[in-house]
Amino acid sequence: MSESKKDYRSIAAGKKLQQNGKIPKDWLLSLKEYECSSNFIGVPTTCGILTDVECKITSEYDGTALLEKLKAGDLSAEQTTVAFCKRAAIAHQLCNCLTEIFFDEATERACQLDQERKSGKALRPLHGLPISLKDSFQVKGYDTSTGLGCFVNEPAEENSSLAALLLDLGAILYCKTNLPQSIMTGDSDNNVFGRTLNPRNTFLTAGGSTGGEGALIALRGSILGVGTDIGGSIRVPSLCNGIYGFRASVGLVPHGGVRDLSVPGTDGVRSSAGPLATSLRDCALFLKTIMQTETWRYDSTVFSVPWTDLPSKKRLRIGLVRDDGIYTPTPPIRRGLETAADLLQKSGDVEVIPLTLPNTVGVYMDFIQYMALLGSDHYLELFARTEEPVIPSLAVTPLLTLKGTDLRGFFDLNVRRAAAAKSYLKLFLDNNIDAILMPVAPHTAVPFDSWSGISYTSLWNALDFPAVVLPVGKVQDSDLPDDISNATYGPQDTEVYSLYTGPERYKDAPIAIQLVGYRHRDEALTNTATIVDGIINDKKARN
Amino acid sequence: MSESKKDYRSIAAGKKLQQNGKIPKDWLLSLKEYECSSNFIGVPTTCGILTDVECKITSEYDGTALLEKLKAGDLSAEQTTVAFCKRAAIAHQLCNCLTEIFFDEATERACQLDQERKSGKALRPLHGLPISLKDSFQVKGYDTSTGLGCFVNEPAEENSSLAALLLDLGAILYCKTNLPQSIMTGDSDNNVFGRTLNPRNTFLTAGGSTGGEGALIALRGSILGVGTDIGGSIRVPSLCNGIYGFRASVGLVPHGGVRDLSVPGTDGVRSSAGPLATSLRDCALFLKTIMQTETWRYDSTVFSVPWTDLPSKKRLRIGLVRDDGIYTPTPPIRRGLETAADLLQKSGDVEVIPLTLPNTVGVYMDFIQYMALLGSDHYLELFARTEEPVIPSLAVTPLLTLKGTDLRGFFDLNVRRAAAAKSYLKLFLDNNIDAILMPVAPHTAVPFDSWSGISYTSLWNALDFPAVVLPVGKVQDSDLPDDISNATYGPQDTEVYSLYTGPERYKDAPIAIQLVGYRHRDEALTNTATIVDGIINDKKARN
Repeated sequence: MSESKKDYRSIAAGKKLQQNGKIPKDWLLSLKEYECSSNFIGVPTTCGILTDVECKITSEYDGTALLEKLKAGDLSAEQTTVAFCKRAAIAHQLCNCLTEIFFDEATERACQLDQERKSGKALRPLHGLPISLKDSFQVKGYDTSTGLGCFVNEPAEENSSLAALLLDLGAILYCKTNLPQSIMTGDSDNNVFGRTLNPRNTFLTAGGSTGGEGALIALRGSILGVGTDIGGSIRVPSLCNGIYGFRASVGLVPHGGVRDLSVPGTDGVRSSAGPLATSLRDCALFLKTIMQTETWRYDSTVFSVPWTDLPSKKRLRIGLVRDDGIYTPTPPIRRGLETAADLLQKSGDVEVIPLTLPNTVGVYMDFIQYMALLGSDHYLELFARTEEPVIPSLAVTPLLTLKGTDLRGFFDLNVRRAAAAKSYLKLFLDNNIDAILMPVAPHTAVPFDSWSGISYTSLWNALDFPAVVLPVGKVQDSDLPDDISNATYGPQDTEVYSLYTGPERYKDAPIAIQLVGYRHRDEALTNTATIVDGIINDKKARN
Repeated sequence: MSESKKDYRSIAAGKKLQQNGKIPKDWLLSLKEYECSSNFIGVPTTCGILTDVECKITSEYDGTALLEKLKAGDLSAEQTTVAFCKRAAIAHQLCNCLTEIFFDEATERACQLDQERKSGKALRPLHGLPISLKDSFQVKGYDTSTGLGCFVNEPAEENSSLAALLLDLGAILYCKTNLPQSIMTGDSDNNVFGRTLNPRNTFLTAGGSTGGEGALIALRGSILGVGTDIGGSIRVPSLCNGIYGFRASVGLVPHGGVRDLSVPGTDGVRSSAGPLATSLRDCALFLKTIMQTETWRYDSTVFSVPWTDLPSKKRLRIGLVRDDGIYTPTPPIRRGLETAADLLQKSGDVEVIPLTLPNTVGVYMDFIQYMALLGSDHYLELFARTEEPVIPSLAVTPLLTLKGTDLRGFFDLNVRRAAAAKSYLKLFLDNNIDAILMPVAPHTAVPFDSWSGISYTSLWNALDFPAVVLPVGKVQDSDLPDDISNATYGPQDTEVYSLYTGPERYKDAPIAIQLVGYRHRDEALTNTATIVDGIINDKKARN
């Protein structure tokens, strides 16, 4: 390591300078105008940087519709890419959501794809579609710093499996997005790039660890991004930013060449890649396109489960879980869930069966141990390389205080985990349900550095059941805080419950639900979620 | 544990008595007649116990053909089951291949299936097909002793996932089969049931760990059985007994509820279940039928990769590996492989590309460490419960002398293993091959208690690539031993090479080849193997 690498501050300053240099001058906002605003959602289309056509391209379509336009030749890959690069640049100036920026390379590639189109070659499945990636996916030629000073200025020598696959599929990669130091907190904040803000309410977290994607997609600087999720890292920012996010079963989406910061060779609960998007059908588009390719050619760690165009069911049975027995859902979350359950029940197409989840505390405690099998020295060692401090949101998690275990302890965790997976499969089958409907978290996006628990999401990582987040509305004036004594699961529950202080501070905070399906039946879950989304999110139901 | 459990000899005596009581008197052989014989293959059809029809049922069909007859109603499930029970009883008396015997229950079930047929119900996919199971698969109501005294007389309370699935599919389970103490050696020998003999040459091992299946199927006391393979346990007995055996990718065939004797929760290199059969198409039948069902309903550990009726390729590229750089193949193995490669090359349908496997020593050493992550005390503790001695074939493996590792050591193994899997995938892709053709072992079945190395098979467990064994002939008079100096990889190689002492002792010992495909592309490997088998094993090619 060179001497110059040792202080994270100079590394960060250099990196930010480099980053700013990637944004053309014409695309710069006059930020003063927005200083007093806490909601940036309208800015991209009103700031005057996008042309009318660019506003339309980036505002009016989801990825599925945009892909149709691209394939039909109604839009060129170049104009589409430039539009999204511009809007991503705007989003970044507002919310600090990007890490690596490669607009030039993306535009060049878009021109090549336009040429390919003209030459009469068969169109690639994702011809010209811009896709953003969480920083931890290696993209050849760019850093995979994950916001750590020690990894800055070490450009990747090869593409991660997914980046290689997406490029072959015709997608345009144009930027990577911000995440927390350690990639393990609910605030996408680090000492190199700083904090990503929530564009719907800048006093609340954008979520983590895929928070850069969350903010970028909420502002439609991207309409389809890819994150990873080992405890909720796709679903938490999806909730916080009011977008869709799908944590696929482990291994279905190529994960090779993703930098995670656990000790190399760590096994147990594994991280899973999946899409974040503005529509559910874009999550389906992403999964279907990936699973229809020969993913096994790209990644020796993948589970190459093909998409089989399963017929959609006419009637569903959905298990309703109101509460995980660890954290009590706060009033807006309760309302959102009940509204969703009512709409489903009233639709006539869905039978809702209230369920209680077994052994959530045991699974959660074991999950936390899985996250620090060898303790946390390896994180501290990475931080120490450039003398960077621990970010506040990491200090509120237990990660850095956990003691490791030994090999027998690891095996004991595996035994309990396998037993839990078996009992949860039985719960699903005995109740003959298609999915479970439940909160994503006990709360919406919360103020900075206060997201401490992830039991609602990590449960499904521990068991490896796929889970998708659907936005269902936002905090309303009628969502009044109620008595803290409603939180009955102990001091931590009380502390978390008391985070909700009422609709003023939580203005525009999105509310979402989580649907959970059977392991490796991600396609079936997609079908189920499509029906549920159709019922809950038709115009009348939106609040 | 009761006092009476403490001495394995009384336990074994009681168990053998119970076992003998399950064979009807009319089915008993006069064993004296066969005392001087070393090859029992002809006995079942000449001993006079089977009727002509039973001879025909058990001799003339493979599982695929038999299933057609059963479904067409040309054969009843009852008569078919009785025929196989009888022939299994004969095989057992000759070779000691069975552990649990449940002929009565099987016959009763067969009658029910015949009734089901008469009632006009839709026929189940495996309607009436008898299938044998390795002892380690739990079958409700019967022991899963794995030949260990400490587990005798503890009937299983539920079916293993695969047993439950096979029963639902309409198969008839009628017996379980013998295996080695520890389930980790090349000799199916233990202190409860004793040694299974190789029916083709009783001076040679029947192989392990699925050796009971190997012998039973060679004698056609079963035509389709299921084993498990963590280092070669399906493929080694397939080679030894001259049958087909398919080690599927981990998790594709439900493995839940299989007793293995590693420390509970052990992860890393995992055991895989798969078929042993008299024809390759029966391996395909088994895999296809399993993979077409919703295996995920039966087993929370399964990878539910569907069978998709892949089109068969017209031209193949096969990588030829003559030698793994650890053990030098002995003359009959070399001849078998070269003959196979020549036939493929001459067929015009196959291009054969000589390949050298990278880093085999490193992968093998790591594989061995994976087999004893916590050392071997847990084996010794199980043996000590009934004071049973270590079987000789276990003493020739390194298993009981290995030191364990720690959690970081385990992670380091995982890192090297992932790198190897990546480099092997690259080797396959760079050479654009459909499969690798190579020996199953450096030798055929060997004399008792001398099988010490499994590098040719365990490589593919370590990497989790599927592998299938095809019999290609047997030792010929012309297979003369050659100079030991041909073995150039050190003293262990020399020792193993010197096991081959010439065609007299190895009379009728089968020769086989191994084909290895891409992970989770088991269906594609089945297609490839079908073409290869068709070329190598047509009538003219059989020696």
